[in-house]
Amino acid sequence: MPGRTGSGAGAPDGQEATVILERTRACVDPELRAAVDSLPASMRRIARYHFGWEHADGTPAAGNAGKAIRPALVLAAAAALGGPAARGAAVRAAAAVELIHNFTLLHDDVMDRDTTRRHRPTAWTVFGDADAILAGDALQALALGILAADPHPASAAAAARVAACVIELCEGQQADTALEKRGPAEVTLDEVLVMAEAKTGALIGCACAVGGLYAGAERGRVDALDAFGRESGLAFQLIDDVIGIWGDPRHTGKPAGADLAARKKSLPVVAALSSGTPAAGELAELYGRPFAPDDLDRTALAVERAGGRAWAQDQAADRMSRAMDELARAIPDPESAGGLLSLAEFVTRRSN
Amino acid sequence: MPGRTGSGAGAPDGQEATVILERTRACVDPELRAAVDSLPASMRRIARYHFGWEHADGTPAAGNAGKAIRPALVLAAAAALGGPAARGAAVRAAAAVELIHNFTLLHDDVMDRDTTRRHRPTAWTVFGDADAILAGDALQALALGILAADPHPASAAAAARVAACVIELCEGQQADTALEKRGPAEVTLDEVLVMAEAKTGALIGCACAVGGLYAGAERGRVDALDAFGRESGLAFQLIDDVIGIWGDPRHTGKPAGADLAARKKSLPVVAALSSGTPAAGELAELYGRPFAPDDLDRTALAVERAGGRAWAQDQAADRMSRAMDELARAIPDPESAGGLLSLAEFVTRRSN
Repeated sequence: MPGRTGSGAGAPDGQEATVILERTRACVDPELRAAVDSLPASMRRIARYHFGWEHADGTPAAGNAGKAIRPALVLAAAAALGGPAARGAAVRAAAAVELIHNFTLLHDDVMDRDTTRRHRPTAWTVFGDADAILAGDALQALALGILAADPHPASAAAAARVAACVIELCEGQQADTALEKRGPAEVTLDEVLVMAEAKTGALIGCACAVGGLYAGAERGRVDALDAFGRESGLAFQLIDDVIGIWGDPRHTGKPAGADLAARKKSLPVVAALSSGTPAAGELAELYGRPFAPDDLDRTALAVERAGGRAWAQDQAADRMSRAMDELARAIPDPESAGGLLSLAEFVTRRSN
Repeated sequence: MPGRTGSGAGAPDGQEATVILERTRACVDPELRAAVDSLPASMRRIARYHFGWEHADGTPAAGNAGKAIRPALVLAAAAALGGPAARGAAVRAAAAVELIHNFTLLHDDVMDRDTTRRHRPTAWTVFGDADAILAGDALQALALGILAADPHPASAAAAARVAACVIELCEGQQADTALEKRGPAEVTLDEVLVMAEAKTGALIGCACAVGGLYAGAERGRVDALDAFGRESGLAFQLIDDVIGIWGDPRHTGKPAGADLAARKKSLPVVAALSSGTPAAGELAELYGRPFAPDDLDRTALAVERAGGRAWAQDQAADRMSRAMDELARAIPDPESAGGLLSLAEFVTRRSN
């Protein structure tokens, strides 16, 4: 797209986003590592394993600490409204947001009994529940402590916003575990949407808002940035749920059908179940009995025939359109908004 | 004690401390309840149960939210160095410290599989592990969020100090669980002392330091307040450990022998084990085999004959003497220091 930045701004192949994410990791990683290294040895060990910097025995690992989407959004929002100076000042806050994300991953894996994260055994499977819980607790304290100690004038407002976001993340995780325990007919689409916004949208929105705060942006813009991130995050979740059923047409990501096999009440499934169509009844019947591999195709087809796939795709497009409106409200100049736009498109297309 | 305050300052029966604790609860409880009530319904329910304000079914309960020692120390330190104005300004910070304490209790109970807290079933036994972990996470965020949003000039320094303390508390709990897994001969006295300081001393020290910060005290005094709290906290732990073996001579508290039955490596036990006496060998042998009720008296006697009881009592006296030195360094005027002194004496005597 000509007239933007020099690195292929908004290019549909996600090139600009890839560059932004690489640049983010280059400046946030040292901050993140220094923060983790400030922990006492017992906590440091678990955190370094979780981030992929160390093997379980403490030897160095290649390191797959995740894509750093959230810190990239902090820095892109700061740069968009405050230029390079604000971006530079927000690096510590970006690291803090990434620490919060990883604290929730450590705890969610314990609660969900998930055994794999970033292609490695989860921390609780290696170190036990207690150590994984404690390492998560320490990462939350580390993150909020970094913001509290940051002399930047926006740091207190950012810390308060991040703390409120943690409470919403807890609420989202609580709703997720509670919904999974209920029968397929007892869950409404609205409940799952609220849960997904709390669990996925809230921290992506908070990351954008923190960047805005570090740029000294006024309240209205900060809130619009938050809404932009939330809508993008929900669009991401909708597409992630579609991939969880039908697979990723472009990449080897999640195995197709994994969410159906796990009887997950993902957004397309709940949309299908509440559609009032004959296929909804068939789906409810399938979800009501133990999973058999032979049912997989039939279940996916029932979700599709009940309109679950089309609904999720329409919703994702609708959420992205709302995200764009919020972005325009936060940052009227399209040139400045380019980085955030590229990241949102990258996240929702998972194009890496 | 004439010439102090009007409420029986420093009276050996703990009357002044009782009055201070009552006054603390009267002003901190509303702040604490308002904070908990600001949580989303799913978290609020668990927190209100944990604090003893509600039964598991959500109906109101008589409420035994604990003695409020830590908030009392925050307010007493603030008052000692900044008078009633500082005390008033520190109420929110006092509530934040109490929220941190309760976050760690919620998580420790999950990790230790403890089933009783304040004479009621622990939260995880009622709501499940996931909800108890999430409620703890939310209380940590709530506490640090309250400090971040507090306009008081000391709030950022207090938040940073509390966050650092949380990391130390995690370290202490980690060390505790790790030490309990090791054989009785593989634990050194120094390790158990370091663990007890992190697990018990750190937050009591932090409470005193936060009060000093809210009084605008200089760094040296704040650090001396922290050291006063740490030493008092360790004295408390030593005496608590003695009570865990021989019972409380004055009150029906912990049942005598409970810690021995649980094969706990408490401070007097580890001191006895590392004494090099013949009784140490007998104790190691007793600790190395499954507990039989008949062994109880013999085990307690072995700890005593190996010098564990005398050591713990001497250590407690020594720690209290160090605490008094630190208190004098922080607050040279004995009149002003009266409240903190009463609280420290109350805590270490458990005289209520």
